[in-house]
Amino acid sequence: MKKILCPGFKAAGIACGLKKNGEKDLGLIFSTVPANVAGVFTKNRVQGAHILLDRERIKSGLCRAVVVNSGNANCCTGKQGINDAKNMAMLCASELGISEELVLAASTGVIGEPLPIEKIKKASPGLVKALADEGFDDFAKAIMTTDTVPKIVSIQRDIKGKIFTITGIAKGAGMICPNMATMLCFICTDIKASPQFLQKTLNDATKQSFNRITIDGDMSTNDTVIIMANGASEAVVQSSTKNNSFQKALNEVMITLAKKLIKDGEGATKLVEIVVKGALSDTDAYKIADTVANSNLVKTAFFGEDANWGRIVAAAGRADVPVNPDKIDIFFDDIMMVKNGLGCGKAAEAASTKVLKKPEFAVLIDLHQGKGFSSVFTCDFSIDYVKINADYRS
Amino acid sequence: MKKILCPGFKAAGIACGLKKNGEKDLGLIFSTVPANVAGVFTKNRVQGAHILLDRERIKSGLCRAVVVNSGNANCCTGKQGINDAKNMAMLCASELGISEELVLAASTGVIGEPLPIEKIKKASPGLVKALADEGFDDFAKAIMTTDTVPKIVSIQRDIKGKIFTITGIAKGAGMICPNMATMLCFICTDIKASPQFLQKTLNDATKQSFNRITIDGDMSTNDTVIIMANGASEAVVQSSTKNNSFQKALNEVMITLAKKLIKDGEGATKLVEIVVKGALSDTDAYKIADTVANSNLVKTAFFGEDANWGRIVAAAGRADVPVNPDKIDIFFDDIMMVKNGLGCGKAAEAASTKVLKKPEFAVLIDLHQGKGFSSVFTCDFSIDYVKINADYRS
Repeated sequence: MKKILCPGFKAAGIACGLKKNGEKDLGLIFSTVPANVAGVFTKNRVQGAHILLDRERIKSGLCRAVVVNSGNANCCTGKQGINDAKNMAMLCASELGISEELVLAASTGVIGEPLPIEKIKKASPGLVKALADEGFDDFAKAIMTTDTVPKIVSIQRDIKGKIFTITGIAKGAGMICPNMATMLCFICTDIKASPQFLQKTLNDATKQSFNRITIDGDMSTNDTVIIMANGASEAVVQSSTKNNSFQKALNEVMITLAKKLIKDGEGATKLVEIVVKGALSDTDAYKIADTVANSNLVKTAFFGEDANWGRIVAAAGRADVPVNPDKIDIFFDDIMMVKNGLGCGKAAEAASTKVLKKPEFAVLIDLHQGKGFSSVFTCDFSIDYVKINADYRS
Repeated sequence: MKKILCPGFKAAGIACGLKKNGEKDLGLIFSTVPANVAGVFTKNRVQGAHILLDRERIKSGLCRAVVVNSGNANCCTGKQGINDAKNMAMLCASELGISEELVLAASTGVIGEPLPIEKIKKASPGLVKALADEGFDDFAKAIMTTDTVPKIVSIQRDIKGKIFTITGIAKGAGMICPNMATMLCFICTDIKASPQFLQKTLNDATKQSFNRITIDGDMSTNDTVIIMANGASEAVVQSSTKNNSFQKALNEVMITLAKKLIKDGEGATKLVEIVVKGALSDTDAYKIADTVANSNLVKTAFFGEDANWGRIVAAAGRADVPVNPDKIDIFFDDIMMVKNGLGCGKAAEAASTKVLKKPEFAVLIDLHQGKGFSSVFTCDFSIDYVKINADYRS
């Protein structure tokens, strides 16, 4: 397999003892040249300590490094937690020989336990020494919690003939729901772009990707998406750029990462896109798609490979937007299962059941009321989800 | 065990072949004298056929009988469904020799399959013949779906020295969430009360009971609560009545039934009350209690008997109401686990874990922001919930 790279960036991932099983739990991304930065953070009213730090620091628009630990969320840890987040960044800055203001931090893991900062302190020199051009795979492993696979995407595109690279790394498998979740995502790119432009592009890409996925309807305290653009390539993008292939490329990277999160969702065995069309507005369509995508009854039926369309209609009916049950059509992929609110019979059901046996499929709900459209990605809800989450801390 | 009765009422429950396993699936309650009636129905935009019929018929304020089937929800069944609901009522009316306008219907079970009305037709004479003063137990069995136990409560209280009886029967184990669910509840009482007064009393009792419980956050299409008051006792209640012991008694019956639903929730092993105090308003307190009570991560932690208070704080933080994380206290029963947003340490955790091993306990979240108070009943989220709902139709 080709090694994942991003020009002008180095990365590392090592084990410092935060994870009980001795696996990698401390990661670092470093831009060898100054980079512009933008970020998107959780809307939860309870927020991890690093969020407060990062929100403040990205205001400068500049960043050289991000240090990330797994195994502990450093959330609900009071003033000590904020000091720990600062220290974590400071330790790396000092090893790297850069200003601590240029280092961001992020944490993911159990909430409510103090961050073992001594372990991080001891490991910081080794972490910086481990930095390498091809260190992204190690970094991706170091930020995993209940994830079963690392999640990296790297693509090259061009703008006005100038090649640029976007390399994205994400983690998150539970507490995933619209408006992100226990999700961390770090995007490195060698394009040249202003912090303001990066922020706008990142906001749009987030709307298209991480805000359209749900695993369990729980929104995390630590959700963070950071993009760093170091201009190491000759590609430049700005608000006057026509045919903004950078936005398209960033959407592509982040949608791919979002789908990887769902596929690796806790206990998930299926990736399902819930598509709603014909609503009175896009907002109405989103509310219905979101309600269906979060319904435990719908998701357990997916797990059971049961074309129980009644649960889909019932979920659509409680989304608190106008729905005319007698006009609803429902398709599983291209199989029409419901027409004008009525089931299409045994043959349709048999064909739909076949669709449900696939690892990926789409459910289309056509309301025939207007032009509103939206879609949300979700997964099935399995016995393993409960097992994983009942035992998480033990 | 004492037989359940309600003066002036007869009930029955028989098997007519709707349930594959041959168990009771058709029930009837009959008031031997004219009764006043009131009802509360689902707010889902998709509604079972019987809801349309019953809403219309209770406008008269009068009712003599309710016929109920399980095994089929008669929902998403179009015009045929409405005809079937009418026929179901008409068949009983004709056997009972009363006007069909005085008979209500209710259905519960799988959505989207036509009601096998022929089976009900064939069974109706036998159903009416089976009516008996002590038939409530059979009725309670006949309306069960995934319920594992019948749910009946009967109490006697007095108003101005005159004894009255309230007998309530409910069913529902999944699709249970605030604003009711796949829940049916029938209340018989021999008190004398106007339909308007019954409606007001029923609305208040519903707010105190079925609108404060959640099993899986899914709201059903068929939720129905019907109260019939036949005045067979000498007790009378009206809006001018002081010390309305009827409201208290009705609250008691409905709260007891609501808790029975939770205890028998699909896969549930624990009944948990989520209490929120110190919010800026009662509405804010309710939103937080509701969000925590519906969090899959919180509920799986209850199942795992894990005092994972971080998930509770995280859920509280996404309820979209003002929360100051640094002020939050959390108790498991009388054990303080969190003070000012910080965990109280290993001893508190050990004591909390003991509380979580109990079949019933309370979680108190004190926000220290104001006087808002609310509480919601929920259950844990177990492996069996997924098993039950993945296989429901197979």
